[in-house]
Amino acid sequence: MRTAYHDELAELRAALGAMCELSGVTMEHATRALLQADVDVADRLLEDRRQMEHYSAEAEEKAFKLLALQAPVAGELREVLTGLQIVADIDRMYALALHVAKVARLRHPAPALPEEVRGYFAEMGRLAVRLADGAREVLQTLDPQAALELDADDDAMDDLHRHLFSVLMDREWPHGVAAAVDVTLLGRYYERFADHAVAVGRRVVFQATGKTPEQFAE
Amino acid sequence: MRTAYHDELAELRAALGAMCELSGVTMEHATRALLQADVDVADRLLEDRRQMEHYSAEAEEKAFKLLALQAPVAGELREVLTGLQIVADIDRMYALALHVAKVARLRHPAPALPEEVRGYFAEMGRLAVRLADGAREVLQTLDPQAALELDADDDAMDDLHRHLFSVLMDREWPHGVAAAVDVTLLGRYYERFADHAVAVGRRVVFQATGKTPEQFAE
Repeated sequence: MRTAYHDELAELRAALGAMCELSGVTMEHATRALLQADVDVADRLLEDRRQMEHYSAEAEEKAFKLLALQAPVAGELREVLTGLQIVADIDRMYALALHVAKVARLRHPAPALPEEVRGYFAEMGRLAVRLADGAREVLQTLDPQAALELDADDDAMDDLHRHLFSVLMDREWPHGVAAAVDVTLLGRYYERFADHAVAVGRRVVFQATGKTPEQFAE
Repeated sequence: MRTAYHDELAELRAALGAMCELSGVTMEHATRALLQADVDVADRLLEDRRQMEHYSAEAEEKAFKLLALQAPVAGELREVLTGLQIVADIDRMYALALHVAKVARLRHPAPALPEEVRGYFAEMGRLAVRLADGAREVLQTLDPQAALELDADDDAMDDLHRHLFSVLMDREWPHGVAAAVDVTLLGRYYERFADHAVAVGRRVVFQATGKTPEQFAE
């Protein structure tokens, strides 16, 4: 019984790790599609959703089964429940990466991004991928300290996002309203992606310590 | 034991209902703050977050406790687990309503909305509040048919959202980029609010029937 339990818990962990990796890779490719106006990359990402649906359904099912058949308590119960919440966060990260791909495809063959904001998105893409990697790692190590450190990249993302808005709002923006709308939405997609990665980290802190990140940091 | 169990389950349900109601009321007031450029209403909403934090922590705690102490199975396990997922959806609805209030406050004393899109937001606000009400109702009745019917208002929201974008993109938009950015983000907040209400409905279908909405609709 306990062996089966630990095997299943390990499978749940593995499924979450795989989901996190797929979200990161998808965001990496979507950013490339966006920066290089590469519609083939964007198309491939948008046609290829089955894998995540599969992981996600599998992870939820595993969590439900573990609870129904093994009735875990204390730390193990906490792990399964936060696992279930983490599925929703990673699902959302993946959906946001696909939103980026969609914008890249919609504007094709025109580039969706005016030259002067490309650097912002290259950097936001880099941070997003690093955050997804970081979230994947802490899901594996359950290291609450490392989980909290995801905040630093999220702060950098928020900074970029703010600067991006000041480019849109304060200068003479010469690219028209349509481009401004795209840049606004894209900026939001990256920022939300980062928020969800941080949320994964926060849940790992709770998983590992039973404390909220604020309690743990004290 | 079973009596305690059912009392606690009823409390969890009540907490979710209260959260849903608070999200709807907050969106209603935020929309008013937006349309009437009423900074006092916006301020009050933004200062008043404690209630939702309290509900949300309470609902999560109840779900954890139910699972830890009562180890429910089958339909009751499903109810507690989906309850936990629903907390995250309603938390997000509330956060989005506050985002609307923030935009209203940021632009004060200027109205955040140009005259020609005010009608869109009045209607999107009406739909958002109706969706929150609908979600609250199905949380109470657990009626899967009614839960699925939330889709109709969400479709109406998506329609409005699309039209709003065509106003921004296709005509000579005379209000400049800053207003376009605000309208873009606001439109997204309402649309996401509606999506989360529909997600609550989908989870209720699963809670009540053990089927996904697609399986149930067949």
